[in-house]
Amino acid sequence: MSTIHYTVAGLAERFGLVASGDGARVIDGVGTLAGAGPSQLSFLSNSKYSSQLAATRAGVVVLREADLATCPTAALVASDPYVAYAKLAALFERMPAAAAGIHPSAVVADSAQVDPGASVGPGCVIGERAVIAEGVVLGPHCIVGEDCTVGAHSRLVARVTLVTRVTLGQRVLVHPGAVIGSDGFGLAFERDHWIKLPQLGGVRVGDDCEIGANTTIDRGALDDTVLEEDVRLDNQIQIAHNVHVGAHTAMAGCAAVAGSARIGRYCMIGGNAGVLGHLELADRVTITAKSLVTHSIREPGEYSSGVPLQDNRQWRKNAARFKHLDEYARRLSTLEKDSDNE
Amino acid sequence: MSTIHYTVAGLAERFGLVASGDGARVIDGVGTLAGAGPSQLSFLSNSKYSSQLAATRAGVVVLREADLATCPTAALVASDPYVAYAKLAALFERMPAAAAGIHPSAVVADSAQVDPGASVGPGCVIGERAVIAEGVVLGPHCIVGEDCTVGAHSRLVARVTLVTRVTLGQRVLVHPGAVIGSDGFGLAFERDHWIKLPQLGGVRVGDDCEIGANTTIDRGALDDTVLEEDVRLDNQIQIAHNVHVGAHTAMAGCAAVAGSARIGRYCMIGGNAGVLGHLELADRVTITAKSLVTHSIREPGEYSSGVPLQDNRQWRKNAARFKHLDEYARRLSTLEKDSDNE
Amino acid sequence: MSTIHYTVAGLAERFGLVASGDGARVIDGVGTLAGAGPSQLSFLSNSKYSSQLAATRAGVVVLREADLATCPTAALVASDPYVAYAKLAALFERMPAAAAGIHPSAVVADSAQVDPGASVGPGCVIGERAVIAEGVVLGPHCIVGEDCTVGAHSRLVARVTLVTRVTLGQRVLVHPGAVIGSDGFGLAFERDHWIKLPQLGGVRVGDDCEIGANTTIDRGALDDTVLEEDVRLDNQIQIAHNVHVGAHTAMAGCAAVAGSARIGRYCMIGGNAGVLGHLELADRVTITAKSLVTHSIREPGEYSSGVPLQDNRQWRKNAARFKHLDEYARRLSTLEKDSDNE
Repeated sequence: MSTIHYTVAGLAERFGLVASGDGARVIDGVGTLAGAGPSQLSFLSNSKYSSQLAATRAGVVVLREADLATCPTAALVASDPYVAYAKLAALFERMPAAAAGIHPSAVVADSAQVDPGASVGPGCVIGERAVIAEGVVLGPHCIVGEDCTVGAHSRLVARVTLVTRVTLGQRVLVHPGAVIGSDGFGLAFERDHWIKLPQLGGVRVGDDCEIGANTTIDRGALDDTVLEEDVRLDNQIQIAHNVHVGAHTAMAGCAAVAGSARIGRYCMIGGNAGVLGHLELADRVTITAKSLVTHSIREPGEYSSGVPLQDNRQWRKNAARFKHLDEYARRLSTLEKDSDNE
Repeated sequence: MSTIHYTVAGLAERFGLVASGDGARVIDGVGTLAGAGPSQLSFLSNSKYSSQLAATRAGVVVLREADLATCPTAALVASDPYVAYAKLAALFERMPAAAAGIHPSAVVADSAQVDPGASVGPGCVIGERAVIAEGVVLGPHCIVGEDCTVGAHSRLVARVTLVTRVTLGQRVLVHPGAVIGSDGFGLAFERDHWIKLPQLGGVRVGDDCEIGANTTIDRGALDDTVLEEDVRLDNQIQIAHNVHVGAHTAMAGCAAVAGSARIGRYCMIGGNAGVLGHLELADRVTITAKSLVTHSIREPGEYSSGVPLQDNRQWRKNAARFKHLDEYARRLSTLEKDSDNE
Repeated sequence: MSTIHYTVAGLAERFGLVASGDGARVIDGVGTLAGAGPSQLSFLSNSKYSSQLAATRAGVVVLREADLATCPTAALVASDPYVAYAKLAALFERMPAAAAGIHPSAVVADSAQVDPGASVGPGCVIGERAVIAEGVVLGPHCIVGEDCTVGAHSRLVARVTLVTRVTLGQRVLVHPGAVIGSDGFGLAFERDHWIKLPQLGGVRVGDDCEIGANTTIDRGALDDTVLEEDVRLDNQIQIAHNVHVGAHTAMAGCAAVAGSARIGRYCMIGGNAGVLGHLELADRVTITAKSLVTHSIREPGEYSSGVPLQDNRQWRKNAARFKHLDEYARRLSTLEKDSDNE
């Protein structure tokens, strides 16, 4: 069905890689080492899968020079096979068609500006003063609220909502169900009830960011919530108002950052990890999955909290003891003093 | 208002239960032991509610034989009253009407196949080469992307998005806001920035699965993400790319499974529990709420992590001590050695 | 661009505050102490920002009397500057226009009642017997299912789904992606597979509640799920079936409450905290972020679980020791006995 195809030699030339073996072999897709057929490209990056190399039926394998000897088929040698594979595989991705123009079922406000080369899908709603730049693709049911801007070549896959005062940079990719620019959670307690603080800021998202499915990013209370360029957010992440995320930081699914926290550049936030409000994380900080950051972190490095998984019966005994840990520490000190006095 | 009604004797016959008391009593609905009236059916399964039985005003109660003596009204005796009640109660559910045919506001691609008996609601968007089988109900605003298939008698309640290459089996139930087939979170780091890995696989969902509101299931990078049959996912669950979930496994709200993990059959994953990537869980593994699975589990059983809730002041003292647990263990060993040498 | 403006004296009179300095100064917006210009209002509530007061260029600052001496500009004196600011700032919020009437692209069932003063946005779908009261605003793509009621002056910002049997009170604010009234997660296990329990109840939401983006609230199995008045839920919160949340309780992002739990009034549930099913929390209970509540709480106060974040290397050592905590406690007791016997 696919009409995309390249020779091994052609791929080598295109990406500056060294080809080994049958350069004329035609490749029309990609697959795993275990599953790829003779017209498909595969890769070996993680040594865990080395044993699969000898038996692969792939047409060509992207690998390190050290693995070339055991490769039974054509190869493309790369210093970082995973990066090389990412670029190669992109050639074989079939993206859904997105014709330029505005679908007749879309509703576009009079003062909105939509570039003629942009694609606005069925059911999209574009508010007053919104700007949709060239090459943008809005999939079905996207809502671009008042005073929002979507930068050139950005793609909102489907059913994305930009509430208001959201600015996306260029080549931003947003997955279905994401909500950007919703009200920050700002409340003042007066005597016996809550009063809502209006959320008057916006959200600024830098170039080349990716925002996962059902992720939420609130707009700022006064200043903006900010994602610098190349920030990568997985699914179901929560970014509260006035958070600032540094460039190239990546967060795994279900991570959450509370209000006004400031995350550095090149950070890695693990799945379901949390960062409390008003904290600062330095550049190149890694937080492991499900950890809770309760104080600012000034030094790069890896940080964790939590306790290990155990069989429930063992765990119950240990967990019950945790409630007395302070007492145990005191009793230990007492014993040591007694021992010294003997 | 309801016109659904059955006699107690009729219900007994229909489900092979033993009726006790007034078999001619007419039942037109269900309710709790405390709230049900004389034309309603109730049930007693959890012994915690036994004390409510004597005072119930229900028309008939589904219960174990052992509870029959204290039941003041008609009864239906079942070995598992909860299972029997589930089947009985289904008789009284009024589902929203879903007329066969395609709503005029829906947008259906030319190459899509929609069975004439399927119901396609307002605002639905169906992409190229999608297949909608007989008896399917697509509620309002569902998006069925390119190359997706929805199996017979499946129901997408409302505002469900199948992105691309998603195959749902028969009788699958998907709740609003769920996103299935979104891009897996695959990134390669090149020098100073991220490169996205195309996500070329799909998602396969088996027969009789249920997928909760705002749950997200990413499609595979190369192979498919798979849910076998009768998998039950609650709301806001995150299933990453290439995860494989065995048949009859159930996960409670906000659970998350990272990429390429393989969960066995008949597992129970508690609320907000997490499973790290590339791990394997055997069949019949139970993970308690908020636990993090950091290593593969080979044996069935119940597993936990975390520490118990305490008054914040007590907790602070114990938590501070946790940071020195390794030191305490060493000091304990030293004391023991000293004690032995005396 | 803004045409909203007030004098400092006018603001003082409107909210019963004492003005100090230039009462004739015209204010047309709000800003932070660091960012506000001479026509903007700012505030000082958190003493952390006191140092910014002397240098502010704001036109007027809302502050406590004690801070008046160091304020370089006009001031509005309030006993609680944060509450006063919340009310003042609301004057300067520009809400998106919402014209009364039903957008031509909306689909409204014959038996639905929509008040002529309500605003029904593009793509909305309103089911049989639904009621939309006066002053309600339904933003784009909202779905109001069968037998749902939206009370006067409530606002569903965009893409909100009320599934069925949901009743919202007056002035309820619901953010995009929220799903209210989805099926509770009720399953009975029969021999080798799951049977679904029909979810026959509804959801009742009191006046002045706020429900965050992508939050999910399931409807009850038999009785209703209930939020009393002035409950404030942040984004991505999960409320399971038959939960009851007392008035004025607030929950931060990603909190989750399991089935049939009963939360008191004036509780504060921290981000990503969890409450297990069937538990009861008294009034005025605070749960800190990421804690798991595993037993009922009878006394007001603050409660926590979890262990502190550490450098990963230190944490690994301590976490490994946790698996032996019960053994350590026993060894400690043994040493103490030995020591007593000497």
